[in-house]
Formats: sequence, structure tokens, C-alpha cells
Amino acid sequence: MFYTIDILGTIAFAISGVLVAIHKKMDLFGILIIAFVTAVGGGTLRDLLIGNTPVGWMQDITFTYVILASAIFAILFRSKINYLRTSLFLFDTIGIGLYTLIGIEKGINAGLHPIICIALGTMTASFGGVIRDILCNEIPVIFRKEIYATACILGGITYFLLSKSPIENNIVFIIAGVVVIVTRILAVKFKIALPTIYKE
Amino acid sequence: MFYTIDILGTIAFAISGVLVAIHKKMDLFGILIIAFVTAVGGGTLRDLLIGNTPVGWMQDITFTYVILASAIFAILFRSKINYLRTSLFLFDTIGIGLYTLIGIEKGINAGLHPIICIALGTMTASFGGVIRDILCNEIPVIFRKEIYATACILGGITYFLLSKSPIENNIVFIIAGVVVIVTRILAVKFKIALPTIYKE
Amino acid sequence: MFYTIDILGTIAFAISGVLVAIHKKMDLFGILIIAFVTAVGGGTLRDLLIGNTPVGWMQDITFTYVILASAIFAILFRSKINYLRTSLFLFDTIGIGLYTLIGIEKGINAGLHPIICIALGTMTASFGGVIRDILCNEIPVIFRKEIYATACILGGITYFLLSKSPIENNIVFIIAGVVVIVTRILAVKFKIALPTIYKE
Repeated sequence: MFYTIDILGTIAFAISGVLVAIHKKMDLFGILIIAFVTAVGGGTLRDLLIGNTPVGWMQDITFTYVILASAIFAILFRSKINYLRTSLFLFDTIGIGLYTLIGIEKGINAGLHPIICIALGTMTASFGGVIRDILCNEIPVIFRKEIYATACILGGITYFLLSKSPIENNIVFIIAGVVVIVTRILAVKFKIALPTIYKE
Repeated sequence: MFYTIDILGTIAFAISGVLVAIHKKMDLFGILIIAFVTAVGGGTLRDLLIGNTPVGWMQDITFTYVILASAIFAILFRSKINYLRTSLFLFDTIGIGLYTLIGIEKGINAGLHPIICIALGTMTASFGGVIRDILCNEIPVIFRKEIYATACILGGITYFLLSKSPIENNIVFIIAGVVVIVTRILAVKFKIALPTIYKE
Repeated sequence: MFYTIDILGTIAFAISGVLVAIHKKMDLFGILIIAFVTAVGGGTLRDLLIGNTPVGWMQDITFTYVILASAIFAILFRSKINYLRTSLFLFDTIGIGLYTLIGIEKGINAGLHPIICIALGTMTASFGGVIRDILCNEIPVIFRKEIYATACILGGITYFLLSKSPIENNIVFIIAGVVVIVTRILAVKFKIALPTIYKE
């Protein structure tokens, strides 16, 4: 089941990459690269930082196929993709919930401090979008107005608080994932954003 | 012979870095860094992703000397470098042909899927230019109008198709390299480019 | 004592990140990330290139606490931080002196060529600022007008020249660090900069 959600998240991230790249008037190759980088960038950074090489997507060809298929789909149906916006947002949100927890788990397995694990989970979930924005020559959107990463951090904190309770590990995992997803959905619904600090 | 071509490719990449950096009004140090990054960036990313550390250029000081010498040459003769444009284009093109195949071979040695190997080869050949453009605050040129990466991918596919034939491995290597080089030259000569997809 | 200086350097780098991020109108999360990346970016690149994973800051939680505290301090007292400008410049300068030497030492331990070690030291000291500028969508400042990296390189050369003399290693270390610091201070005081080469 985790694997299925991972694939759904990959699809959502790849499609978001395609849309940004088309908007930037990139050629076909550029679009595919941005789709790819958006989908696997977070996991790649995580694997590099903890020394888990060759990095994940290089060892399971399925992700490459899924990303290529999603990108082609998004290119062909780009004018109709607005109808899918809600589904995409849902995939994306479930995806970051899962990616956060995968990152945390890999951090725990590498024997790292809980705070570092949460940072690793947040990077896994958000870094693909950061690289996408850098390659497109934009200030990364998550640094400006999304509550994206905050949701990941709250989920991570929940995970570590509950993991000391007698609750079973699988259930803690699910609760933490739900915290990420619900925080994100509420933030978007009610337009909650972190405060900006202008220079005085 | 491969080593010679590798050096020629390094020279061409370093000089291309210098020219872009001068155009961006960078100082001497900035120019040297951009030359260096353009020349070794692709191989560095490849080595990091497959966990081959310390990365290549750190283990063979020759590349550092070649890059420094090329950069100094390019800075001194910058106003005359136009006369060398054809030679540079040739070095560069032969360079990407070779870099693609080096990347593919490292991927095979790491036991990766052929598609991943082709991706690795393409990255080896093209990522130096991508970092150069990011550091210079441009959208990477290969995402916009070059057929650069497509040439690498075609060469990679040729390699894997022929490697299952009874043709000797060395000759397959050469044929695949020639495919990269010829594709690139034809594309530039006839101004072939991948289609762009504007947002509707 | 080295550890103390390392912490002081981290504080200075984190605060410089906060100031740039506020200027770019980032939200709270963006500011924290930029502070973090500025402070640990150089060491992270160094550790990745030599294969020292999990990278340094993941193995010592102190740095994370120091960066968070510095960032919060800088955000709260942002309007008064001008009074601290001299202290910050001093921390920062001592920091790059030390970071350069830490990088060189790690290179020596990995059995690398002196020139590569100096490059590694310079990267350790300067790459945090490079990533900060890329994430903020600027051409990195060290490529344009700072003598920053030159100071690191001079310090590195001093280290290797003296390390062949009979002078004790600890003292060589201190002299090289002082060379970095003094070069930087003199360059700023007398507005020395590397020449820029405009395209003709």
C-alpha cells in the first residue's frame, strides 16, 4: 500500500513539474527533466546526505517509467489538466505525507537524532519542488508562501512524540501522515501562511 | 586514446565556461570556478549518484591543470577566440560523445538498468553546462533550444541495441560515440530543435 | 578551542543568511532554511565530494541548535543588527579561516593532492554563501566582487608551504588561518578586488 501511495505521489510531482516547465516555454527534453527532477529530487538529496548510493530511483526502474508516462500524459492533456486539479492536489498532499515519513524512517535507520530525521523527512518531501524552481530560475515557492514544509515538520514531531507512547508503530505512522495531510489541506483551504518579515 | 579525447573535451568545456563567465562580468575567481564547474560538473554528479567518492577529478590532478591552463588561455585570447569556434565546437561535441559513453560504462559497472545507464551518460555529458547556467542565473540552455541531450540519448540507445549483437564491444563503443557526434553536428547544421510546447 | 571558533563561524554564517532572506521577503521557513544552508552548505558539499556520509551536521545536533538560535536572534533584533556588523564580520572572517583549514585537513586525511585539498578548503568556506545566493536567485556574490575565496586559497598555499618546514603542525595551522583572516580584512579595508574582464 505504501508503494502505491509512493507511485501516486510520484505521478503528482511529475505532473506539477511538467506544468511549470511548459509555462517556462521549455522544449520536450527540458519538460521531461523538470518532471523527473521534481519527482525524485527530494529522495535523491536524502540518499546523498546519508550516503545511500546508488540513490533510490536508480535501483528501481518503475519510477522512471511512471514519471515518463505521467509527463507524456500531462503534455498531451495539458489543456484539460485543470479538471484534474483537485485530484492532483490530493495526490501531491498524500505524497508529501508519505515522503516525509519515508525520510524520517531512513534517518532513524541511519541512527540520526530525531530533529535531523524530521529535517530529512521534510527535505524528501519538499526538495524536488525546490530544484524544480531553481532550474526554472525562480525563487523556490516554498520559501515564499507555502505552508508545505511546516506540515511536514508537524507530522514529524507527531511521529516522534507518539513513538514513545505504547501505540503500535504502524498506527503512529498513519497518524503522523494524516497530520501532514490535514495541516496542508487546512492551510490551503483557509489560506493560512507563515508570516513574512520585511526589512525595516 | 580515450584519455586524450577526455582531455580535449575538458578543454572545450572549460573554455565554454570562461566565455559565459566573462559575458556575465564575473571576476577572475568567478571565471575560474565557472570553467571548472562546466568541465567537471557532469562527472561529479554522476560519481555522487552512484557513490563513487572521492569524485573523479579529485583523484587525478591532471584535470585541474588542464582546466586552469585552458581558462588562462581563454582569458588571454578572449578577443581572438572566435577564430577557434569551429575547433571548440568539435572538441565539445567529441567530448559529449565520450562523456556519454563513460557515464554509461560506469552505470553498467554499478549494475544499473540500461535506461538508468543512459540517463547517467546524458547527465555526465550535459550537467556541467546546466550548473554553469544556474550559477550564472540563466535558465539552462539545454532545457530551451539545444538538441544536446537528445544526441546523448540516441547514442546510449545505439550502444545498448548493438551490445546485444555479436559486434565487438570496442566497435560498439565507437559507433555509439559517432551517433552522438553526428546527431549533434547535423542538428546544429540544419538548426533542428525539439518542439516547444506553449501553455494554451 | 577550534570547536568554539567553529560555532562562532556558524553563528555568523547563519545570521548572514537570515539578513539576505529577510531582504528577499521570504517567509519564516524560508529564512530558517537559508540560515541553515548558509551555515552548513560548504561542509555538506565537502563531505559529499569525499564520501564522508552521513554528512557532518547530521551527526552533531549542536550545529542545528546554534543555527536555530542564531536565526531567531537575528529575526528578533533585525533592526539593531547593524550595531553588530563589525562583530559579525569578525566572526565570519575567523569562520572562513577555520573552515578553510578544516577542509584542507579532511582532504589530507582522504589522501588527496595538495591543490585538491586547497580547493576543498575553499569550498568548505565559501560554498554556503554560493548556495544562499542561488536559492535567493542572485549571481553568487563571491563570483562578482569579493576577495573571499582568494583569501582561502592564500591560506591554503601557506599551509602546504610551511608544512614541509620544521615548524610544528599546530603552529602552521594557526599561521595559515591568520593569513586567511588578515588577507580578508585588508581586502575589505582597502577595497581590493580581483579584476573583472569585460567581453570586448
